[in-house]
Amino acid sequence: MEEFRRVNAAALHDWVARAMRATGVPAEDATTVADVLVAADLRGIDSHGVARLRRYVVGVQQGTMKAHPNIRALCDTPSTATLDADGALGFVVGRKAMEMAIEKAEKVGIGVVVVRNSNHYGIAGYYAMMALEHDMIGCSMTNARSRIVPTFGRRRWHGTNPIAVAVPAGRERPYVLDMATSVVPDGKIEVCNRLGKPLPVGWVINEKGEPNTDAADVVARQRTDQDGGTLPLGGEGELLGGHKGFGLGLLVDILCGVLSGAAWGPMIANNVPANLGHFFAAMRVDLFRPLDEFKAEMDRMIRRLKAEPTAPGHDRIYVAGEKEFEFAEQRRMAGIPLHQSVYQELRQIADELGVPFEL
Amino acid sequence: MEEFRRVNAAALHDWVARAMRATGVPAEDATTVADVLVAADLRGIDSHGVARLRRYVVGVQQGTMKAHPNIRALCDTPSTATLDADGALGFVVGRKAMEMAIEKAEKVGIGVVVVRNSNHYGIAGYYAMMALEHDMIGCSMTNARSRIVPTFGRRRWHGTNPIAVAVPAGRERPYVLDMATSVVPDGKIEVCNRLGKPLPVGWVINEKGEPNTDAADVVARQRTDQDGGTLPLGGEGELLGGHKGFGLGLLVDILCGVLSGAAWGPMIANNVPANLGHFFAAMRVDLFRPLDEFKAEMDRMIRRLKAEPTAPGHDRIYVAGEKEFEFAEQRRMAGIPLHQSVYQELRQIADELGVPFEL
Repeated sequence: MEEFRRVNAAALHDWVARAMRATGVPAEDATTVADVLVAADLRGIDSHGVARLRRYVVGVQQGTMKAHPNIRALCDTPSTATLDADGALGFVVGRKAMEMAIEKAEKVGIGVVVVRNSNHYGIAGYYAMMALEHDMIGCSMTNARSRIVPTFGRRRWHGTNPIAVAVPAGRERPYVLDMATSVVPDGKIEVCNRLGKPLPVGWVINEKGEPNTDAADVVARQRTDQDGGTLPLGGEGELLGGHKGFGLGLLVDILCGVLSGAAWGPMIANNVPANLGHFFAAMRVDLFRPLDEFKAEMDRMIRRLKAEPTAPGHDRIYVAGEKEFEFAEQRRMAGIPLHQSVYQELRQIADELGVPFEL
Repeated sequence: MEEFRRVNAAALHDWVARAMRATGVPAEDATTVADVLVAADLRGIDSHGVARLRRYVVGVQQGTMKAHPNIRALCDTPSTATLDADGALGFVVGRKAMEMAIEKAEKVGIGVVVVRNSNHYGIAGYYAMMALEHDMIGCSMTNARSRIVPTFGRRRWHGTNPIAVAVPAGRERPYVLDMATSVVPDGKIEVCNRLGKPLPVGWVINEKGEPNTDAADVVARQRTDQDGGTLPLGGEGELLGGHKGFGLGLLVDILCGVLSGAAWGPMIANNVPANLGHFFAAMRVDLFRPLDEFKAEMDRMIRRLKAEPTAPGHDRIYVAGEKEFEFAEQRRMAGIPLHQSVYQELRQIADELGVPFEL
C-alpha cells in the first residue's frame, strides 16, 4: 500500500465543506473551514490541514465549537475592534475579523481587530494573506495550547503562538511569513509522530532539561502535566537567542490574549472551551508611498536576494512563503498527498457523518 | 588599572549633550542624543551607548549626519506618515517620528510613521518605550548595515534589523522586547572584541560556512566584502528555525526600507549617506479593553510567569525588558561602568571638541 494517496484539491474542498455542513455548520461557514484547511494542505503545511478535521467535527458535535455562535463586537471604533467569538470555530470568526480589519484600513489606513472566546483557527498565514488582494500588508497572530518552556523555566507556558505577515509585491510572489515563535510548530511534531520519525535534538526538552527525540512520547506527554516541552525559537537559554523567541511568544500572548480578554499561557490547556485569542491587522501601503513604486521595489529586493550566491550544498535562497506558493501550484495540479492514516480517518468521518466520500 | 570606571549617569548625560552641542547640533537635539545613548548604557546595552559616540560626532562633523536637517513629511494622513529625514541624526528624527505616531494614535487609535534618509538611531527600545507613558503599545524597528547571512546564502544581506515592542503593565514593570532579528546584535560582537573574548559557536560563520569565533577577525571582516557574517535568529539552515529569523529580518527591511523608500539589504554598507529607514507605531490599549482591566491582567500574567518553576541551575524567569530595568535602577545609583577604552575615547573626544570632561 502506498504511504500517501493523492486527492484532488477541489474535490477535497467540496467534501470538507459538505462534512462540516453535516455537523450543522451553516453553508458559508462550512466553506470557510474548507478554505482554510485545504489552503494549509495545498501550501504544504500538512499538519494544519484536513489531518485535523476530526477535532473540528468533534468540537461542533460536542458544542465546544458552536455552529451558530453569536459573534459580537465589545468595542468598535473606526480603526479598532474587539470581538467576542462566543465559542465560534476559529476559522469563521477569523475570516470575519480580518475582513473587518481590512474594511477599517480601507477607510482610515490601518485596522486592528482582536478576538476572545475563540477556537483553533488553522494557519495564521491564511488571514494575513487576505490583505494582499487589497494591496495591504496583513498580519495575524493567535495564541494556542500551552506547549513552550520559558527561557530558564521548566514547565510549559504559552503555545506555539504563530506570527503571520503578508506583504504584496508586483510581478514577484508576495512575501508571506507564517512562523511559530517556537523552534517548531506542534504540527511538525505531529507529522514526525505520524511518520514514525525521531525528533531532531533542539526541538523538545524533558522535565530534566534533556533533549527528548521520541515523537510518540512527546505527543503523549503533551496530554499530561509533566514538565518539559518545546523550546522557543533560539533554543534553550540565552546564548543563541532563546529569550527572543520566548519574548516573541509572550508578545503574541499579550496581543491575542491579554488585549482581547481571552485566556493566555497555561490557562490554555487541553480543557474546553479553549477561549483562544487572535489578533488581526491590515495596513494600506499607498498611504506611505505610491503603490506602484512600492511593488516595483519589492520586486527589485526579491530578485536581488534570489540572485545572491548560495551556501555550499544549496542552490536557492527562499523568500518567506515562496516554498508554500510552489507547493500550492504543484499540488493544485498533481493533487494533495494525504498520508494513509489521514485518508482513513477522513473515510471514517465520512461514514460517521453519512457524507459520501469519493476521493 | 581597573578595567571599568564608574561614571554618574546624570553627569554623563550632561557631558554628552554638551559634546553634541559643540559639534553644532541644536540644544534640544543634542539632549535627545544624550537621552538615547545614556538610556542604552543605563539599561546595560553597553554596545549602543556612549561607546558609539564618536561615530555620531564624526558623522556631524563630516556632514553625513546633518546638524540642521530639513525633516519633512512626504505623506501625512490621520493614521500614517512618511518622513524624509534629510540625513538627520537617527535619534532626532526617531523621537520626532515616534511623537507623531503617538499623537496620531491619541486621535485615531493607531499611528504608524516610517522614515527614510536617516542614520543609526541607537536602541530601538527607546522609541517603543515612549508609548508607555501614554498607556499605549509602542513599536519601533530599524534597518541597519549589511551583516546577516540569509538562510542558504553565503554573503551578508540585511542588518541586525531589531524589533522593539513596549507594552504597559499596572504595578509590574512594562514588557519591553528589544531584539535584533539575528542571533546576536553587532554590539555584542563589539563588546567581545573590546574585552578580548572569543565568540560562541553559532553566532558568526565564515565564507565557507564554518564558525568564526575570533571577534577581532569578525570585526575586521565586516569592513571588507568577504563572504560570511552573522547568523539569523534560529541559526544556520532551517532545522532550528533560521529561516524564521531571516524572515523577520527581511520583514524589518520591508517595513523600514521598502515601505519608506529608504535603502535596504546590502545597499546599506559602510558607505555614506546611510539612507537608513525606520518604522514607528503606537496603538491605544483602551480602545480594545478598559485600561485598568488590561493593566491588571498584564500584572496577573507577569506574576504568574515569575512564580513558575525554574530550570535546574536557574532561579528566575525574566519578562522581556526586566533585566534592563534592573540594570537601570542599579546603574542610576552606582554609576555606569565604562570600559577603560571607552572612557579614554570619551576623554579624547572631550579634548578634540574642547568640552571639559570631569567624569
